[in-house]
Amino acid sequence: MRAIVFDGEVHLRNDYPDPSPRPGEALIRVSLAGICNTDLEIARGYMNFHGVMGHEFVGEVVGAAMPGWLGRRVVGEINAPCLNCEVCRTIGGNHCPHRTVLGIQDRDGTFADLVSVPLSNLHEVPDEVPDESAVFVEPLAAAYNVLEQVHIKPTDKVIVLGDGKLGQLIARVLWHTGASVTAVGKHDEKLALLAESGIAAAKISELGDEYADVVIDSTGSAQGFADAVRLTRPRGTLVLKSTVAEGVNLNLAPVVINEITVVGSRCGPFDAAIRALATGRVDVQPLLQKVVSLDDGEAALVEAARNGVLKVAIQP
Amino acid sequence: MRAIVFDGEVHLRNDYPDPSPRPGEALIRVSLAGICNTDLEIARGYMNFHGVMGHEFVGEVVGAAMPGWLGRRVVGEINAPCLNCEVCRTIGGNHCPHRTVLGIQDRDGTFADLVSVPLSNLHEVPDEVPDESAVFVEPLAAAYNVLEQVHIKPTDKVIVLGDGKLGQLIARVLWHTGASVTAVGKHDEKLALLAESGIAAAKISELGDEYADVVIDSTGSAQGFADAVRLTRPRGTLVLKSTVAEGVNLNLAPVVINEITVVGSRCGPFDAAIRALATGRVDVQPLLQKVVSLDDGEAALVEAARNGVLKVAIQP
Repeated sequence: MRAIVFDGEVHLRNDYPDPSPRPGEALIRVSLAGICNTDLEIARGYMNFHGVMGHEFVGEVVGAAMPGWLGRRVVGEINAPCLNCEVCRTIGGNHCPHRTVLGIQDRDGTFADLVSVPLSNLHEVPDEVPDESAVFVEPLAAAYNVLEQVHIKPTDKVIVLGDGKLGQLIARVLWHTGASVTAVGKHDEKLALLAESGIAAAKISELGDEYADVVIDSTGSAQGFADAVRLTRPRGTLVLKSTVAEGVNLNLAPVVINEITVVGSRCGPFDAAIRALATGRVDVQPLLQKVVSLDDGEAALVEAARNGVLKVAIQP
Repeated sequence: MRAIVFDGEVHLRNDYPDPSPRPGEALIRVSLAGICNTDLEIARGYMNFHGVMGHEFVGEVVGAAMPGWLGRRVVGEINAPCLNCEVCRTIGGNHCPHRTVLGIQDRDGTFADLVSVPLSNLHEVPDEVPDESAVFVEPLAAAYNVLEQVHIKPTDKVIVLGDGKLGQLIARVLWHTGASVTAVGKHDEKLALLAESGIAAAKISELGDEYADVVIDSTGSAQGFADAVRLTRPRGTLVLKSTVAEGVNLNLAPVVINEITVVGSRCGPFDAAIRALATGRVDVQPLLQKVVSLDDGEAALVEAARNGVLKVAIQP
């Protein structure tokens, strides 16, 4: 099959072996696969991952031991846990120390014609959600995870820092809390997209000196984290949504002095994300900037890494 | 009066002007003043503080507009808030953006014959608590603040990282929660002190590979923070109790991947600390290593900075 592979460099391969689903896994023909910033970091060596890249996808089940799944249109959670260990039983499979992760850790990903995913990871996509929206389920679930972890109140002042792919989704999700939400970014077109969705959007220089009760850092940069700390009120909450691949120079003294709570946040609830798309609560269509053929996958990754570009999806 | 002053360097001055208490402040004759790691950081330039150093103290009120206070033996909270702003009203005076802080920010401290402190900061010391214990009220309150901020359950596994002054107090406080508490440090004598108090103590190399539900980082080092992150279970809580003066190279990716909650923690409840000393719940006496005359204050600071030394107190 065709696959975008990282082996120290990014290559399109036309002769990559088809996946061999393990027991309990389904073989899926990928319809659309989204490019996430984590993929761009992996292409720079993050996680030391080698294999087929990609973890966001929507596709059709073409092979499964349970025939009821055949032909269904699905999205899939990216963590494949052992389901046997203490962490799986008590904390949850997303944190299983033995997990593999689609396109991130010890498991081939979704930038390919076919991908093998555990059946227990799959979620059927309702008819009213087109592929072009369904491909956002995984990052939208990550956005909803903020609300799984932190109670945001209608009286809170919230700042979402970062107007990129994830920041856009988080701002759209948090808008529903009734809180005063301001999305803060650097790019006029991206801020305009937010404003078109009725979300207050600003550049950081336009903010007053008022603190926010909750700040979400989805910038992926050390400067973004420092800004987030500065914008969080004493005893407020800072949700850290993006990983910076390398250790960077950070000053945590203000976290102690202002007694800020920093909450690390990763994958989230697929059901809530699918519901949001099916009911139109969140409109992701404006965020899909380009659909590129798998044959042009290498170029798609370069395109997705360009400053100012939102979601690029790969179509096998 | 005599005072230990930092003006870029640490000096003992014999001609420092007596404090002039502002309205609502009491003049206090210092009986004993403790040296904290923050003082050692201030002597290295932290907070750009210039003035009389020191913030931990016990003393006697020798001047006050409310005569009922005269002659009382007191300890005092270190933050002097404006009590008028929105932060004072909603979050609390310890976070007042206009605050001054004894020996840390825009207010002379306690390594002196006399110090001026707002009356509303004072707490009377019960007769059963000697000066040698009362001088620990401020850091003991900071230790109790962990329990103000985080719910530690009797079924939790807790690691207190750092066997220094603050770590020793935190371990003693958290021991009372009923949780499985292990104090982790580097110094045989300090770990022995903990063991003598019935607290499990270990070197980091002696720990198994089990995670803790809650980790308190009281090391004040970047390596300590990295260790704390590694020891915290997925979705666990890391309480950051000590400031590292400079920005250092930190990797926050594991905080995101393991969805750890990092809680910055600073000053705490004096009442709880005084109660703990008055009832014998916490015995701080083994931690007082040396009492040094104010005349030898410069040497006392050098002594307190020596690796392995616990609390050094200055006696005017």
